[in-house]
Amino acid sequence: MTYPTYFEALDARQLLADYPIGEAFVERYTAMSRDELRARQERDFARLMARGWQVPFYRRLWSARGIEPGDIRGLDDIGKLPVYDKSDLMASVAEHPPFGDFGGVDGADRPPVIFHTTSGTTGRPQPLLFGPKGREVGNLLVGRMYRWQGLQSSDIVQSVYGHGMINGGHYIREAVTHFTNAIFLSAGTGIETRSAQQVGLMADFGVTVLVGFIDYIRKLAEVARDEGLLEQLQVRMICGHLGTEDRAGVEAVWGGAKAFDWYGVGDTGCIAGEGPERDGLYVWEDAHYLELLDVDSGAEVNRGDTGDMVVTCLYKNDVAPCIRFNTHDITHELAGTGEIAFKRIAGFKGRSDNMVKLRGINVFPHAIGALIENRADLTGEYICRLRREESGRDAMLVVLETRGGSDRDQLSALLREGLGVEVEVDLCPPGGTAAATQIDVRQKPIRLIDERGR
Amino acid sequence: MTYPTYFEALDARQLLADYPIGEAFVERYTAMSRDELRARQERDFARLMARGWQVPFYRRLWSARGIEPGDIRGLDDIGKLPVYDKSDLMASVAEHPPFGDFGGVDGADRPPVIFHTTSGTTGRPQPLLFGPKGREVGNLLVGRMYRWQGLQSSDIVQSVYGHGMINGGHYIREAVTHFTNAIFLSAGTGIETRSAQQVGLMADFGVTVLVGFIDYIRKLAEVARDEGLLEQLQVRMICGHLGTEDRAGVEAVWGGAKAFDWYGVGDTGCIAGEGPERDGLYVWEDAHYLELLDVDSGAEVNRGDTGDMVVTCLYKNDVAPCIRFNTHDITHELAGTGEIAFKRIAGFKGRSDNMVKLRGINVFPHAIGALIENRADLTGEYICRLRREESGRDAMLVVLETRGGSDRDQLSALLREGLGVEVEVDLCPPGGTAAATQIDVRQKPIRLIDERGR
Repeated sequence: MTYPTYFEALDARQLLADYPIGEAFVERYTAMSRDELRARQERDFARLMARGWQVPFYRRLWSARGIEPGDIRGLDDIGKLPVYDKSDLMASVAEHPPFGDFGGVDGADRPPVIFHTTSGTTGRPQPLLFGPKGREVGNLLVGRMYRWQGLQSSDIVQSVYGHGMINGGHYIREAVTHFTNAIFLSAGTGIETRSAQQVGLMADFGVTVLVGFIDYIRKLAEVARDEGLLEQLQVRMICGHLGTEDRAGVEAVWGGAKAFDWYGVGDTGCIAGEGPERDGLYVWEDAHYLELLDVDSGAEVNRGDTGDMVVTCLYKNDVAPCIRFNTHDITHELAGTGEIAFKRIAGFKGRSDNMVKLRGINVFPHAIGALIENRADLTGEYICRLRREESGRDAMLVVLETRGGSDRDQLSALLREGLGVEVEVDLCPPGGTAAATQIDVRQKPIRLIDERGR
Repeated sequence: MTYPTYFEALDARQLLADYPIGEAFVERYTAMSRDELRARQERDFARLMARGWQVPFYRRLWSARGIEPGDIRGLDDIGKLPVYDKSDLMASVAEHPPFGDFGGVDGADRPPVIFHTTSGTTGRPQPLLFGPKGREVGNLLVGRMYRWQGLQSSDIVQSVYGHGMINGGHYIREAVTHFTNAIFLSAGTGIETRSAQQVGLMADFGVTVLVGFIDYIRKLAEVARDEGLLEQLQVRMICGHLGTEDRAGVEAVWGGAKAFDWYGVGDTGCIAGEGPERDGLYVWEDAHYLELLDVDSGAEVNRGDTGDMVVTCLYKNDVAPCIRFNTHDITHELAGTGEIAFKRIAGFKGRSDNMVKLRGINVFPHAIGALIENRADLTGEYICRLRREESGRDAMLVVLETRGGSDRDQLSALLREGLGVEVEVDLCPPGGTAAATQIDVRQKPIRLIDERGR
């Protein structure tokens, strides 16, 4: 049997024409109007919907709501389609093991498929499927972002994203090697390459850029100091999911390297990232259609209000299309316009499934990270404990790590103002929250413990 | 600055035309004469030598011997060029850190580079550099081999080759995903994915093919049995470096799966592999020029005699050309002709730097594996201890693991006949050699301990 291989199934030149990188990227999207952008999105959305109707998962999801192909005439109608999330994909896997029926890859004539899983920090790993086009556009969006942020072909990039079945490390390796011409060191997690070896690699190979989870990148600075290598390292740029992390803190421990934020999840790839000026995260609107939906009602929020990020990958029309995927990560859109035509968001501001209602106010524990960063008296680490009072009312205790000299009343006032509701504050010495957050063993630390059932 | 990205620097269609896969591969090389093949090799060798002269490492190596470009008019002259090995590459790295001067990638207009390291089981990891063409032809040779051996696009392949900085896992992932259309599970080593999870993946995803180091694949069968999953697994094909390993043994523990052997090292990629009939390892002569050189004299051995495999990668003319690389792995050419025009070798038969001289006879400890396989009384594990007798003469003690019922005199006779010289034999219970071979922690177990200096 003959069949097209990866490269035959991929039109790499068309891909680079449709999704320009380097100077061509900035030129096109500086000049493009919102109307032109919308026309492009409409064209890609129509093609995506045609593909979606071929995929059993979407046929089932949409037909259950009585939706017919003719009902969705364009992006103005997208709100008629139901959103779905990881639980729907895992149900699809349970019903149609092992890959689910969301890939659209049944039959002998399927295209080449790249298969990985999510890291599975919450429960069983979720299968991720990609076709050549979906994979390489996803890679390109990361490579393009790194280059816009200042990555040069002369840079040496070390990645501490993990490999094995997990998508992350393979994804970022492809992004850098296929689309940037920088030299890439696939060091992986501290399990793949011990931390002392990681900083040894940085010294030996003159690493200038670090990419990966920020917690581990921060830890590596300590290791470099312990190994006596920190002074000689030349790291000038860091790129990862900063979200609510302390940007200034990680920059400081790495000797003033410039840190950049981006956002994306396994299903969607890179959705948004900072540009060189770091004035918000630009949504890659030539590839994604991002909606922000009210966590309670599911209606589109007013511009500037916080909502769930619901993503439609306009480019992913080969394998496992992604049409209104609810990430349950929240953010808000920024006001004004940026350097290019794309709209900007604030980036990851918390998980709506971690959202707590306190006296009618929605509180996102992750928001506390940003409220307490840049303070010399605090380490930036914290844990929230949700309790039910005797009266039946919910209350939240926020435990903050202090290096000493912190004023509890002043911190209470700071959090009350930032969160919009009163919370209790407790202080503990550095490292005092580590057992609860599991920061040493988890790529994404726990920030909320719900003790209401106890 | 603009520069060609990976896909722009790669002519994927030309690559598939030059190195056909699937049915086209068998058709072309069944029909091709040795003369046609030689003409193709001469054309590629001329192009490779032109590239070699641009690379500082080779200019230095060759000029030191007084060689000038006009001296090498074709493959008949290749013996005039010096061989080199890993120690020369590591010296190049020491003199020109961190990448050495064998890549030929100085200057701002260098092509995209893929960078990895060897596993570094013996000393410091060696940098491996690839350009897009060299990388993808290397990938193609593995994918083409798997398909010839019987891999179908409907297969589910699990790889237990490691990732991180090491080339292996990334290389095989690219080979399968770019050139076979099978679905690939990048499980990695037992450190990346615990062994119990590995067999869980096999069960969950219906894995039909295992690729990786044979020791670990054999161990996973035990784990699958312990987990109660072995009966339901559907592994039908295994592919790895069998070399002197016990093929029948690994096939038996995996319920009769068919095991295939191949050979290659990090610098060269896949040099040779078995075809569907498993009648020797075909040297991929459209991509490699393989010489077998006498370990002592460096002269070409007579056909059928054992020699060092010295490899010239005819295809790798972009980054880090490989011209007369001495692997120090030994083999011999097989007599007769096979299914296609390419010559055949016996595969890995030992390391010449592990070669022992006993009473004038060259003895390769790895050869013992093949001599003792398929015996119910032995586990197949062994360790050789080289000692100097009072008289000054060297003697070798071979310790074999027995399950009981072994006759030491009979085994002595077997080894004497197979090795061509008398060795001492000792017996120990199963597991008795593990501490010395380090089989539980090394991907390639130690087989020789030189105790002459003690």
